Amino acid sequence: MPPTERLTQQLDFLVQMDALKHVFRQNVLIADRRPENDAEHSWHLALMAVVLCEHAAAEVDIARVLSMHLIHDLVEIDAGDTFAYDEAGHEDKEEREQAAADRIFALLPADQEGQMRDLWDEFEARQTTESRYAAALDRLQPLLLNYHTDGAAWVKNGITHTQVVKRNAHIAEGAPALWEFAHAMIDDALTEGKLAG
Amino acid sequence: MPPTERLTQQLDFLVQMDALKHVFRQNVLIADRRPENDAEHSWHLALMAVVLCEHAAAEVDIARVLSMHLIHDLVEIDAGDTFAYDEAGHEDKEEREQAAADRIFALLPADQEGQMRDLWDEFEARQTTESRYAAALDRLQPLLLNYHTDGAAWVKNGITHTQVVKRNAHIAEGAPALWEFAHAMIDDALTEGKLAG
Repeated sequence: MPPTERLTQQLDFLVQMDALKHVFRQNVLIADRRPENDAEHSWHLALMAVVLCEHAAAEVDIARVLSMHLIHDLVEIDAGDTFAYDEAGHEDKEEREQAAADRIFALLPADQEGQMRDLWDEFEARQTTESRYAAALDRLQPLLLNYHTDGAAWVKNGITHTQVVKRNAHIAEGAPALWEFAHAMIDDALTEGKLAG
Repeated sequence: MPPTERLTQQLDFLVQMDALKHVFRQNVLIADRRPENDAEHSWHLALMAVVLCEHAAAEVDIARVLSMHLIHDLVEIDAGDTFAYDEAGHEDKEEREQAAADRIFALLPADQEGQMRDLWDEFEARQTTESRYAAALDRLQPLLLNYHTDGAAWVKNGITHTQVVKRNAHIAEGAPALWEFAHAMIDDALTEGKLAG
């Protein structure tokens, strides 16, 4: 591929990814409680990864963690956001997201398609130190937003303490100290009426 | 500092940084032309840094580039966004942003305050390979959004081709191939009436 064509293909991909700013989540922002979008969420995760790096279960290659965070929700441009506690939505989530990954990463030159797909597959599988740490933050960030908005997304969707603990316990695999903190925060949320028993 | 207190301070910082999602820019999004916010912009830059890495003027430490992108606009939580072509706003921009950096990075534990401030100072000074590449993308991303929204922010603010070329020419320092592309795009924008002569 001529160099100019390759660059044009990369930039076309980056322009199309602007759509991530229109994929809305169940969580709301702290100041005005409007729904957060996936681009904002992805930025927040990546910032957390830098600041909280010392709490990862083992030493991580931070560039790989950040790259995972930056791309982890691109598939939702096609597949939409599936709320963490939506059991029906989770039945076909993997199928929808695999199809989305097939289409979206193929917008890149073939070598980069392979790299990005490997990175996304690694994030989804949570078998490496980097992906476990990255996934831990992907759970912790919505917990923080929910806690600081009086449990807005939990209350709206009738989510219980048991569900939140079960859903988020794997934070411990990637960052034990963060799970200790998060578990205490979930317990506080129950006590403070931000979460149903 | 006890470990728990350190983690609490880090998480308090990360919760406060949610405010970046409320700092709006002059650029508008491609699909619905609503103003972009700084969190979305920061995510987009970082994604671009990963995908376009081969076009940096020299080999870069990508983790440092990404960290710069993630934090480069945090000062705007206090100082607000200054439009690239707002000459009056630029007169006191540095003073406002330095004061913001003093306050915001001091929310972190002292060692991390130092690291983040050094990184932000490096980004602002544009004297290293990483900061020049990071800054090049910070210019290219708004150019892409403007080009793909019929020059919305340019037209609204009466910006000319000469101004855009002058303002963005330093893309060449960080990524020569990207400046070649960007310059051609700016010329096209003039021809297509997206930008005044």
